[in-house]
Amino acid sequence: MSGPGTIHGVGLGPGDRELMTVRADRLIRTARHVAYFRKAGRPGQARTIVDGMLGPDAAEIAMEYPVTTEIPVEDPRYNELLSAFYADCAARLAAIAAAGEDVVVLCEGDPFFYGSFMHLHARLEGLVPVRVVPAVTGMSGAWTATGIPITWGDDVMTVLPATLPEEELSRRMADCDALVVMKIGRNIGKVRRALTESGRLDAAWLVEFATMATQRVVPLNEAGERVTPYFSIVLVHGRGRRP
Amino acid sequence: MSGPGTIHGVGLGPGDRELMTVRADRLIRTARHVAYFRKAGRPGQARTIVDGMLGPDAAEIAMEYPVTTEIPVEDPRYNELLSAFYADCAARLAAIAAAGEDVVVLCEGDPFFYGSFMHLHARLEGLVPVRVVPAVTGMSGAWTATGIPITWGDDVMTVLPATLPEEELSRRMADCDALVVMKIGRNIGKVRRALTESGRLDAAWLVEFATMATQRVVPLNEAGERVTPYFSIVLVHGRGRRP
Ligand SMILES: C[S@@+](CC[C@H](N)C(=O)[O-])C[C@H]1O[C@@H](n2cnc3c(N)ncnc32)[C@H](O)[C@@H]1O
Ligand SMILES: C[S@@+](CC[C@H](N)C(=O)[O-])C[C@H]1O[C@@H](n2cnc3c(N)ncnc32)[C@H](O)[C@@H]1O
Repeated sequence: MSGPGTIHGVGLGPGDRELMTVRADRLIRTARHVAYFRKAGRPGQARTIVDGMLGPDAAEIAMEYPVTTEIPVEDPRYNELLSAFYADCAARLAAIAAAGEDVVVLCEGDPFFYGSFMHLHARLEGLVPVRVVPAVTGMSGAWTATGIPITWGDDVMTVLPATLPEEELSRRMADCDALVVMKIGRNIGKVRRALTESGRLDAAWLVEFATMATQRVVPLNEAGERVTPYFSIVLVHGRGRRP
Repeated sequence: MSGPGTIHGVGLGPGDRELMTVRADRLIRTARHVAYFRKAGRPGQARTIVDGMLGPDAAEIAMEYPVTTEIPVEDPRYNELLSAFYADCAARLAAIAAAGEDVVVLCEGDPFFYGSFMHLHARLEGLVPVRVVPAVTGMSGAWTATGIPITWGDDVMTVLPATLPEEELSRRMADCDALVVMKIGRNIGKVRRALTESGRLDAAWLVEFATMATQRVVPLNEAGERVTPYFSIVLVHGRGRRP
């Protein structure tokens, strides 16, 4: 026996296959075990990004969330269910590593930036070797898609999860230069109100599916009222010092 | 004649060659014209990252800053000099594109995140085709190097340029969960004082040369008083909700 395998948390970037790092590309194409999260009954965004890249002998481990939006986040059962789920996934991956084989865990964007992999990482650290491959974030994909730089000179940038209360969103939106709002989806109405209250609605952009085939970039003002997908980011560009 | 060439602003990522995107890798290896910024008399970080990748016929365009720290940023001559410099660089690149050839401009990290390329982009847009390749940011490289996720659940992340006044730094440091401070260098003393005032010094990490051969990761408390390089980031990790 040659010691335990390594669990690689591999960032895939925002979605465009060519925006994967050279290291991610290599690890994915040569992986024996490939794990990824998804909603039950869905192909899963991470798995979709690597379509056609996996070797013929790669074993796939689909980790299906027991709950996504059926139970409110505040309900204690939400936390219990998710916690047991992550513990179970971590145990499955640790067993493969203990048997001497590497596992590649596919992560959307950068693994350590609001990523689900972090919940496995917290449970695996110290038990088996874990390595993380950083990646292009969804927000980098989004601001590049607008064709406008996000931060200049002394600009302060704030990243807000749209899950925060409306008043906190609007206070923080008013107190920064560049702004990135993540986890939009069904929070779009609240985000729009907070942008209005903070006086920043007119400068806001909505980017859906950044760098993917279905990418849509539009000033938020012109976005209409339709339902916003999970892969959406709202941006306000900084306007700092520039020679 | 087949129309103008394209100017590609290509993000290189934080420094490790394998953390370049597949697209950046391809564009750089096949480029006919490769441009990059550097301090006069220095090899330049961007150029160093691609050492050994350029084709034998690649023409190099070193764009040397006329001024870096010799004149204070507040001095109007600083802005004038830099503005003329960027206009001159943009004209050189536009002339190549007008002659029908593509140019790859090497950018440290992500081009649209506090990048020098933005000053060319602002001058070239509308004149010649410009495309930007997003990249892994220095901060993603830095938090991955600490081995600790940067943001969880509802964490708010603030990115601060260390060039801001001390009171503004400390006020904003106290009012966020995850914290990233860029442009450290000679501002390290001010950053340390602001972290102390905001009560966050004990949780701060200093990451120098993230993902490069000379990488150094250390709790800021244990960093001592030595001079901090330009390629340094100070981080405080978020501690948000986690199942
Ligand atoms: C759980 S977070 C994961 C973030 C990811 N680790 C990253 O580095 O971007 C999910 C949120 O990221 C944002 N996101 C990630 N990729 C995106 C993309 N390609 N287009 C739009 N939004 C994206 C959306 O706001 C989404 O709700
Ligand atoms: C002008 S900004 C450019 C940022 C770059 N465009 C990015 O996406 O990271 C330069 C600052 O980025 C930070 N930086 C970039 N790469 C870094 C690295 N590999 N290690 C540490 N700091 C880095 C440092 O704070 C540096 O002062």
